[in-house]
Amino acid sequence: MSEERTELENLGEFGLIDRLTNKFEKKNNSTVFGIGDDAAVIALSDTESTLISTDMLIEGVHFNLMYMPLKHLGYKAIAANVSDICAMNGIAEQVTVSIAVSNRFPVEALEELYDGIKTACDRYKVDLIGGDTASSLSGLTISISVLGRVNTELITYRSGAKEHDLIIVSGDLGAAYVGLQVLEREKEVYNANPNIQPDLDGHDYIIERQLKPEARLDIIGFLKELDVVPTSMIDISDGLASEVLHICKSSKVGCHIYDEKIPIDGTTSMTAIEFNLDPNTCAMNGGEDYELLFTIAQSDYEKIKGNPHMTVIGHITHEQDGTYYVDKNASAIELKAQGWNHF
Amino acid sequence: MSEERTELENLGEFGLIDRLTNKFEKKNNSTVFGIGDDAAVIALSDTESTLISTDMLIEGVHFNLMYMPLKHLGYKAIAANVSDICAMNGIAEQVTVSIAVSNRFPVEALEELYDGIKTACDRYKVDLIGGDTASSLSGLTISISVLGRVNTELITYRSGAKEHDLIIVSGDLGAAYVGLQVLEREKEVYNANPNIQPDLDGHDYIIERQLKPEARLDIIGFLKELDVVPTSMIDISDGLASEVLHICKSSKVGCHIYDEKIPIDGTTSMTAIEFNLDPNTCAMNGGEDYELLFTIAQSDYEKIKGNPHMTVIGHITHEQDGTYYVDKNASAIELKAQGWNHF
Repeated sequence: MSEERTELENLGEFGLIDRLTNKFEKKNNSTVFGIGDDAAVIALSDTESTLISTDMLIEGVHFNLMYMPLKHLGYKAIAANVSDICAMNGIAEQVTVSIAVSNRFPVEALEELYDGIKTACDRYKVDLIGGDTASSLSGLTISISVLGRVNTELITYRSGAKEHDLIIVSGDLGAAYVGLQVLEREKEVYNANPNIQPDLDGHDYIIERQLKPEARLDIIGFLKELDVVPTSMIDISDGLASEVLHICKSSKVGCHIYDEKIPIDGTTSMTAIEFNLDPNTCAMNGGEDYELLFTIAQSDYEKIKGNPHMTVIGHITHEQDGTYYVDKNASAIELKAQGWNHF
Repeated sequence: MSEERTELENLGEFGLIDRLTNKFEKKNNSTVFGIGDDAAVIALSDTESTLISTDMLIEGVHFNLMYMPLKHLGYKAIAANVSDICAMNGIAEQVTVSIAVSNRFPVEALEELYDGIKTACDRYKVDLIGGDTASSLSGLTISISVLGRVNTELITYRSGAKEHDLIIVSGDLGAAYVGLQVLEREKEVYNANPNIQPDLDGHDYIIERQLKPEARLDIIGFLKELDVVPTSMIDISDGLASEVLHICKSSKVGCHIYDEKIPIDGTTSMTAIEFNLDPNTCAMNGGEDYELLFTIAQSDYEKIKGNPHMTVIGHITHEQDGTYYVDKNASAIELKAQGWNHF
């Protein structure tokens, strides 16, 4: 090892991935697209492609078993991976699940986890086809790979957004993050006095959005029915701001996002305010909503107009015009990702 | 969670996998074969299939950075996964690599790891197409998925061995295990007095077999050239005894393995004896050799006869005849896997 020492936190996740992988060269014709989108693309036939994506979840970093039941964790892990395949406009078909566990977990706990995995596999019609089980010295680690299939012409990369395209988001945003605040508050209350019952009343929607998010497979179906192929797409795992910036960077474009257009559920707003949080900030930077963010040509607007699951939140501009967030007073503020840096 | 508590070590790895996954049902026609072989099989076209396998490696459980340099670890992790695709008679084409690291690792350490990964990817002509990086609270965890391709007619499952087939092994066995003994001894010496230089002289071969094992992609090439499709195949990661039993169980057959036929390198034997170990026991139960174990019809014997990379070590019998190891005195001893149970 050389004498230099660069700390991981100095690079951030994307800087680190780039530094570790930029020397690798493509050797197989079947490899169409590797690192840098929601999933990699492998040629399957003249018309179809295989999509593959992978995720690693670490106890204490990505989840806390204090308020995340194992069954929900299993469900969410599969949903998040299926969502990555949706973000490429594909359909997930198979998953592999590897787990490392310390022996503080009894078999029954792992059965809870696999109950959740099975519920999600049934819901999204994916087959569990493999995995690995190992012991760990501490905690639970879950690694999932998901395989999907897509008609090659329909693949939506992050890089296809064009000037004047409309920016659209599915569902509503910020709920998962605000739901997490409720769960964390109840954990504090419980830690202070385990006899007090948790007060989750009226927060069902936002807690479910945190504990049991859904992959928007239905949106992929709507897009097919409406005959709309987005020019770019990504799923919202880290927060709207971060994902919009990914699309703009990959597509070499700018954007205007309008504050007042961002879809936020009433419960999310009310609870955010209860916590002295700005609802729009929760939507922009909260993450874990697993909604889809995509861009379409203006000529496709008529097709999606009125669809209750899709909201136009802005439009794509020229790269030199920059990436902006326009607030209620029509002031343009430069978009910054406050996303998540796990290091 | 129910009140029952079953400890993980009571089930063992294969029992646990079975208990967790036996309720899952197949939902996609493209899913040809799931859990229970070296890789899962997904239909790709009328004539070709995709193979996928996945592995998780945990610091302190699967590797020890005290004597396993990070570069070697990266190389070995890829080789072991490519070996799983070889065991299905396929060619690996893509890998994803996810890592979880604590911040005690500087970026330079991860670069060493990825140097080894790149060396192996170049050697085996596989493309790194994705992965995930996350922080861990302790140690290093690596999760790898490998994708391969195979002509569907040539797939070798564990389940195809027939009575009278010959049992063949590639290369030689036991070296990786004996190499590990040398490395562990030197670690003890180093711990006692860090100023003593490690004494690895004359052990190059067996240490390399432990630190930098190779996937037998060459054997897959030979089999193609010789026009031999094995009736069953598996790679030797846990030890010959355990792998022979996997084939016999999956194929519902018995076997006779002949002690004196097992290929063991001279250095392996000598060093084993130095450690008061029986060389044949090291070969039968050592593991991590990543050689291929396969069965062929007797009618194919003429084709492989004289190939220096393949040794006939026994033959398949009727299931009711049992699984036996025949020693130098012609006594038949029932085969038992002493393999590895990580729980």
